[in-house]
Amino acid sequence: MSETSLVFEANEFRDRTRKLQDRMARHAIDALLLTSAADVFYATGFLTRFWESPARPWFIVVPSISDPIAIIPSIGEALMARSWLSDIRTWDAPNPPDDGLSLLADTLLELIPNRGKLAVPMGLETHLRMPLADYVALCNRLAPREIVDGTACIQRVREIKSEAEITKIRNICAIADRAFARVPEFAKRGHSLSDVFREFQIACLQEGADWVSYVAGAAGPEGYADVISPADDMPLKIGDILMLDTGAVRDGYYCDFDRNFSIGPASDTVTQTHRALWYATEDALSFLHPGLRACDVHQRLVEGIAKHGATAAPGRLGHGLGVTLTEWPSFTGLDQTTLQAGMVLTLEPAAFTTDGRLLVHEENVVLRDDGAELLTRRAPENMIEIEI
Amino acid sequence: MSETSLVFEANEFRDRTRKLQDRMARHAIDALLLTSAADVFYATGFLTRFWESPARPWFIVVPSISDPIAIIPSIGEALMARSWLSDIRTWDAPNPPDDGLSLLADTLLELIPNRGKLAVPMGLETHLRMPLADYVALCNRLAPREIVDGTACIQRVREIKSEAEITKIRNICAIADRAFARVPEFAKRGHSLSDVFREFQIACLQEGADWVSYVAGAAGPEGYADVISPADDMPLKIGDILMLDTGAVRDGYYCDFDRNFSIGPASDTVTQTHRALWYATEDALSFLHPGLRACDVHQRLVEGIAKHGATAAPGRLGHGLGVTLTEWPSFTGLDQTTLQAGMVLTLEPAAFTTDGRLLVHEENVVLRDDGAELLTRRAPENMIEIEI
Repeated sequence: MSETSLVFEANEFRDRTRKLQDRMARHAIDALLLTSAADVFYATGFLTRFWESPARPWFIVVPSISDPIAIIPSIGEALMARSWLSDIRTWDAPNPPDDGLSLLADTLLELIPNRGKLAVPMGLETHLRMPLADYVALCNRLAPREIVDGTACIQRVREIKSEAEITKIRNICAIADRAFARVPEFAKRGHSLSDVFREFQIACLQEGADWVSYVAGAAGPEGYADVISPADDMPLKIGDILMLDTGAVRDGYYCDFDRNFSIGPASDTVTQTHRALWYATEDALSFLHPGLRACDVHQRLVEGIAKHGATAAPGRLGHGLGVTLTEWPSFTGLDQTTLQAGMVLTLEPAAFTTDGRLLVHEENVVLRDDGAELLTRRAPENMIEIEI
Repeated sequence: MSETSLVFEANEFRDRTRKLQDRMARHAIDALLLTSAADVFYATGFLTRFWESPARPWFIVVPSISDPIAIIPSIGEALMARSWLSDIRTWDAPNPPDDGLSLLADTLLELIPNRGKLAVPMGLETHLRMPLADYVALCNRLAPREIVDGTACIQRVREIKSEAEITKIRNICAIADRAFARVPEFAKRGHSLSDVFREFQIACLQEGADWVSYVAGAAGPEGYADVISPADDMPLKIGDILMLDTGAVRDGYYCDFDRNFSIGPASDTVTQTHRALWYATEDALSFLHPGLRACDVHQRLVEGIAKHGATAAPGRLGHGLGVTLTEWPSFTGLDQTTLQAGMVLTLEPAAFTTDGRLLVHEENVVLRDDGAELLTRRAPENMIEIEI
């Protein structure tokens, strides 16, 4: 690279900025304020696990025509200086009487005329990562400027991935694929689920993940009831169906998919339900194309599961994926979002085996002009059996 | 345990609730709304890595006298049902037209009289984890009820750890201590920093961490400039000072400390600076007692560093610790918080070795009536040398 830039070349970020500004222009927005880890990373390449510390707010301001401005705690200055941004304004945080607020307000007052508009993401799947009291004070400082919802500005841009982003997601999917292939080495009868979770995280790291932000899973006879719990110390036993689901991360990009394993031979019900999910996924993979709505895909998955003799679980059956573990849209009956080429999506059909127990099957794809392209190595039609 | 409860026995959560309600009573608050992962975990024991998905909001309402109420997406119902709470209200999220908002508003309207008050954390080190537009709609639904800042209600309670919590933090500190002891096995000359980060995360998991939420670090001659970056692929070389800093997690509790390693013999400057930090820490360890202010500790650390011939870096030199990587108070010149027995704190003095490069030294302690009790195995006075 001929100039300093983080994760991608500067042109990737210039392109994103231009797209954000195009969206802003449609609504005569003078500046867009971004505060979340994902949005800040998206605009700048600023990648750090330091977001785990809730002590300090971080701000990126996207003006209507010029490059974004970083207004950040000085502890982040060295890292942000390696990004493509040139305008970096810092303060010594935490500073209880004024934790970056004056610096942010002054920047916005420079950029937004008296009758102008600031956009802040306020909608579904967003939250404001700064103290609410400071936000209220900011609104007062900016009056009579209008504060409007910037959700669409950022989401309509982030949801269409560049080839550089798709390469990153394909890479982390391949890393997790290799880790999943090693599960039979350590998911043995008698091992506790918590040890299996640890070993699986170790496998993801050994295969090249930078870190493992998400592992969930469960194990039980005929499937599981709960897919978001941390592991318990119960040993795996014959007849358990083990599910592992991971959001591993490389270069700031996530995968999000699961695999199921049978400890010893699976029951007929489990085998049939798994096949129903597998064929429903096959069907959705060939059905997917730009122009469908998210709810159409949901319906197709529900019908596909039924056609193969199982009953779909309620809840969403897939979603977007990228710089967070989950992104919009949602494959539910309610989401009318039109799918477009460049979206990276998960197909995540779930079906009941018996009352209260289910199986979840998941793959990651990128939507192309001519349909879905798998980013994960396709799960086998028959559930993987771990020999006992 | 005689009843279902997550992470701790139900009495731990009953005690927390009573303390929250005592705080609420002082300001005639009728209900407290909690939305962040840490606050929800604190009130309920609901521990999941699913917070990585920004798709859904989660709400805990603490009424003025009765037990907390969970208002959560149905995907979390099975896990929350294992908590000590009995009142769990769910909706199928994500539901774009009404993503839990009516359910939350109806609950609050039941609990808060017309002239009553809802508290929401709005201050430093807080943020509201729900869409801002939904919060604004909620405020409108609740009018004429008053919405006040609930930061003190939750922070004044969370900052004093119970013995059960201290045991959890001591445990994760011991896990990280064992992982740090293994660093010389893999932090060899020629290994890249990114490989060292992976190996260190693996060591934390092998030693018993449930997951590793935070690893940062750096390596360079005479120290480092940046302590929050992810690793790069540059190989370690003779003369580098390697720093690794971790927030590993067990049962939802964090450690947060670092260790420094010299690849080959350290320079005199590095040796002297490390000793200055070590002795400044020794001094602070014996100085710490309830009744001091956070700024007094900062001053003592700065003076201790100077007394031993080094120059303190700007920024905070320690902070609280518990269910997030960092908590209040901050050891800065500005923080007037009075320290109390039961606070778990980090001492994190940093000093310059040469221009723009520094060393950071960190230990975790719990403050007792008679002073500081170390939770970490004390770093050695002389920096650990990795033989080449």
